[in-house]
Amino acid sequence: MPLEAKALSAIPSLVMQREATIEPRQEILRTAARLFQQQGYDATSMNDVAAALKLSKGGLYHHFQSKDEILFHIMSHAMDITEERVINVVRRIENPEERLRTLIRLHIEVVLSPEDREITVMLHENHPLPPALRRKINGRKKDYVHFVENLISDVQRQRGSASTAIPRAAAFALLGMINWIYQWYKPEGSLAGPDIVGQFTEIFFRGAVG
Amino acid sequence: MPLEAKALSAIPSLVMQREATIEPRQEILRTAARLFQQQGYDATSMNDVAAALKLSKGGLYHHFQSKDEILFHIMSHAMDITEERVINVVRRIENPEERLRTLIRLHIEVVLSPEDREITVMLHENHPLPPALRRKINGRKKDYVHFVENLISDVQRQRGSASTAIPRAAAFALLGMINWIYQWYKPEGSLAGPDIVGQFTEIFFRGAVG
Repeated sequence: MPLEAKALSAIPSLVMQREATIEPRQEILRTAARLFQQQGYDATSMNDVAAALKLSKGGLYHHFQSKDEILFHIMSHAMDITEERVINVVRRIENPEERLRTLIRLHIEVVLSPEDREITVMLHENHPLPPALRRKINGRKKDYVHFVENLISDVQRQRGSASTAIPRAAAFALLGMINWIYQWYKPEGSLAGPDIVGQFTEIFFRGAVG
Repeated sequence: MPLEAKALSAIPSLVMQREATIEPRQEILRTAARLFQQQGYDATSMNDVAAALKLSKGGLYHHFQSKDEILFHIMSHAMDITEERVINVVRRIENPEERLRTLIRLHIEVVLSPEDREITVMLHENHPLPPALRRKINGRKKDYVHFVENLISDVQRQRGSASTAIPRAAAFALLGMINWIYQWYKPEGSLAGPDIVGQFTEIFFRGAVG
């Protein structure tokens, strides 16, 4: 155990409290994600992360052994957020069309959420992750694509759709439209969150020039 | 002038030839883009770029003064490619609908082009660029969004479209669908380039579940 971690665990009540709330881990992930975006992943050291959190290096290593591990957990957390706020809610809706409309709205809300943006953006940046960890994240991303693909297929069937769109291609198109928002969205811009939800739903359901 | 640059310029014929073909600059940009993606922008040094090209450091500095300058020129080159292969071709087409269909096809072809992918991907990664250079790139990106937006507006008018899609939102949706392809496309996958063109055109024109 590093020296500082030992020193920290000498204050058991603080450690207990921290571990009980699970907040310090999320706080570390959030701060690290912000630093990675501001100054670059490679240019950010474990020392930088610890300093930004006013943690000793040992205090940080108590939670995460390496920067790779932090990046992996940021990405996992982003997938957790998607599962909790999108998939788990949508699963409870019976009607396929209603389910797809809700998925579009909730996914856009996650992308636009000021608290989560720092975390979810990291899913899409091309950072080198050890292959085993990369595979885990990619596996979860693929599961989500399949979920959307199956849902689109259900909606096409329900609506007796005349569209020749392949559900897989349509899933990638939809996720591209939505995940791309972080590249252009500005809170002070002319398109507000609810406008984007309405517009993207219309475009995906009926096309933009039909 | 750094020592090696002086040494290089002592071979005028070589320098002349290199400058005449303009290839070495593009070769540097291409190699640097590949290294940035493989090992991260921050983790890649000017020395790494020079070594990968079998250039002396002075030989590299003869073309680019800094890594920021290389990154800026990679991004500028990506915008040049878009202008040459998409905008300039599309401008020559009179019929708006044909123009939009061609734009979708050509933009997808640029995204999928094995030779250009390394360059164009860099447009979307979040790398810190000095503000003045960042503004130049963002200005060119905005011009392209406006071009697509106006084209969509023309097509809606031409087709007497009943869609309530706002051209600006539709432009972002279309560019998101297309630019996102690099996140999932695999040459050995079930969706080949021409399939993607047909599918995305259909989805954008008529919707995916209509």
